[in-house]
Amino acid sequence: MDGGTNVSIDALTRLTAALAEDLQATNRAIVARMDSPVALIPQLAAHLVAAGGKRLRPLLTLASARLCGYQGERHVQLAACVEFIHTATLLHDDVVDESILRRGLASANAVFGNKASVLVGDFLFARAFQLMVADGSLDVLRILSAAAATIAEGEVLQLTTQNDLATTEQKYFDVIRGKTAALFAAACEVGAVIAARPAPECAALARYGMDLGMAFQLVDDALDYAADAAELGKTIGDDFREGKLTYPVLLAIAEGSGEETDFWNRTIGEGAQTEADLATALEFIRRHDTIARTIARAREFAESAIAALAIFTASPLKDNLQDVARYTTARGY
Amino acid sequence: MDGGTNVSIDALTRLTAALAEDLQATNRAIVARMDSPVALIPQLAAHLVAAGGKRLRPLLTLASARLCGYQGERHVQLAACVEFIHTATLLHDDVVDESILRRGLASANAVFGNKASVLVGDFLFARAFQLMVADGSLDVLRILSAAAATIAEGEVLQLTTQNDLATTEQKYFDVIRGKTAALFAAACEVGAVIAARPAPECAALARYGMDLGMAFQLVDDALDYAADAAELGKTIGDDFREGKLTYPVLLAIAEGSGEETDFWNRTIGEGAQTEADLATALEFIRRHDTIARTIARAREFAESAIAALAIFTASPLKDNLQDVARYTTARGY
Repeated sequence: MDGGTNVSIDALTRLTAALAEDLQATNRAIVARMDSPVALIPQLAAHLVAAGGKRLRPLLTLASARLCGYQGERHVQLAACVEFIHTATLLHDDVVDESILRRGLASANAVFGNKASVLVGDFLFARAFQLMVADGSLDVLRILSAAAATIAEGEVLQLTTQNDLATTEQKYFDVIRGKTAALFAAACEVGAVIAARPAPECAALARYGMDLGMAFQLVDDALDYAADAAELGKTIGDDFREGKLTYPVLLAIAEGSGEETDFWNRTIGEGAQTEADLATALEFIRRHDTIARTIARAREFAESAIAALAIFTASPLKDNLQDVARYTTARGY
Repeated sequence: MDGGTNVSIDALTRLTAALAEDLQATNRAIVARMDSPVALIPQLAAHLVAAGGKRLRPLLTLASARLCGYQGERHVQLAACVEFIHTATLLHDDVVDESILRRGLASANAVFGNKASVLVGDFLFARAFQLMVADGSLDVLRILSAAAATIAEGEVLQLTTQNDLATTEQKYFDVIRGKTAALFAAACEVGAVIAARPAPECAALARYGMDLGMAFQLVDDALDYAADAAELGKTIGDDFREGKLTYPVLLAIAEGSGEETDFWNRTIGEGAQTEADLATALEFIRRHDTIARTIARAREFAESAIAALAIFTASPLKDNLQDVARYTTARGY
């Protein structure tokens, strides 16, 4: 996976370089618009927003707009707005439940507390809508407010499937479509919309974003059980500890029996885990080869994303976006 | 305060009766639009939204629209949208901090957990924006997205003033203007905006809502220390236990010395409380007569709210809205 990782980073690095000016303008907009007389807001938001990060979602907005020949300035503000929505969901994802606290798993929000994460997330979400309103396009507002509702639905659905061994593949795909892919899709679609492209091109970019997001999340869920990710300094097993029914584990549960079934019932179903359980989970996952199968599923979505861009004429940016999809399934980011 | 309570309920009851048809339509819109294929969303939202409640904020939108002679249907959807924003903030207010959990003060969200409160709140917030987008007025979107940002700023400011004995009156008023009055103001203003009234009337209703909201929150903060509220079956002392620097306590702290200062430093500043401390707090508050003084301050805002409506011609609805403001300072709701 090492070679793939490098190639993957390369596709994204090239995209970032190609859009460097737009991205710098977006970063300036982000810092300017997350300001508030209430000092804790920029302080806390800076931890996530201003710190940089990959800016993958705003890059998609910028790239989609440019792919569609857009020449104005609106894509910069909308890219900032997409990043605010993403950051708000990250902050709200950080909120810990009583049950998790009891298991001693307090997360990043420990510095500021649950409530601050929630409220600063709310501020960024509201600010995102103010940016959209300032942009003035009801079409853009329609796409992003629908995405925001879908994200919340996906997150709630994920919550209800947590620890539920009866979770179906269909439900899993509904969860990741909502919590991840919907914003990728919206981020891309608005780029085409502000360029006033015809409906098929808007739909093609929405499809590209949706499928890229699906691939992205499948890989993310695979990496959480990938031992070599641990060697890269990433923590693994978070999803296992939280009892999330992700794809690699869904497949292993479906095909396991006897001691495996008992194991999943206890560790995921009842959430009763010991330190040693992660190693056993990894062993069962290896036994059913579900990481490779998860990546293979991701590859199908990536292929679909690549195909969605077929209607656009050839350009370095189109190649670059297709490469980003192509190498999502080998990413280390 | 008993007589006042009855009069207060009466003004709101009359308003509710005058707008009964609009309100029923709003309730239908609320139930219809909080639906989702993700079952937990309507389940949890129903606890707050569908259960009924006073619907004070949506009533303000309905009443403002009607006061401005509005004859269409848009006010119903926007009233639902205002209620969704309010309910989202209630759900997010329910989120408990680790520190509060440690003090054993888990709240209403105990049934579903922190995370569900956050995510269902997010859904309602996003759905509110979808309703506004469907309405199609950028002016309405501007007003309500600005209010949403201001609410979040007010809530964060409140968080940063918690346990901070140096909190100024100015800061307290900034907090309640943000967390409460901004939505009252926006709820009223959009009623005038959809009726396409001239700017002074829109501003007058925004002013009415803002001042009514300030009065409302001041009274709320007074009632939290009002022993006779306890007799009405309300819990008192919540703000004290959470270390909130509300007006009655701000005044008492400013004028206390010696044992009083030591007491506030320990109980509010350090948050180190025992069961018996609330009685002492009530005693110090009585000593400085700060409940009556808080109500007096609320009365000033209520007077300003009443005066704001002066530019409208006489009508039963105008009288009714002025009565609602007048008796806010004697309310039991």
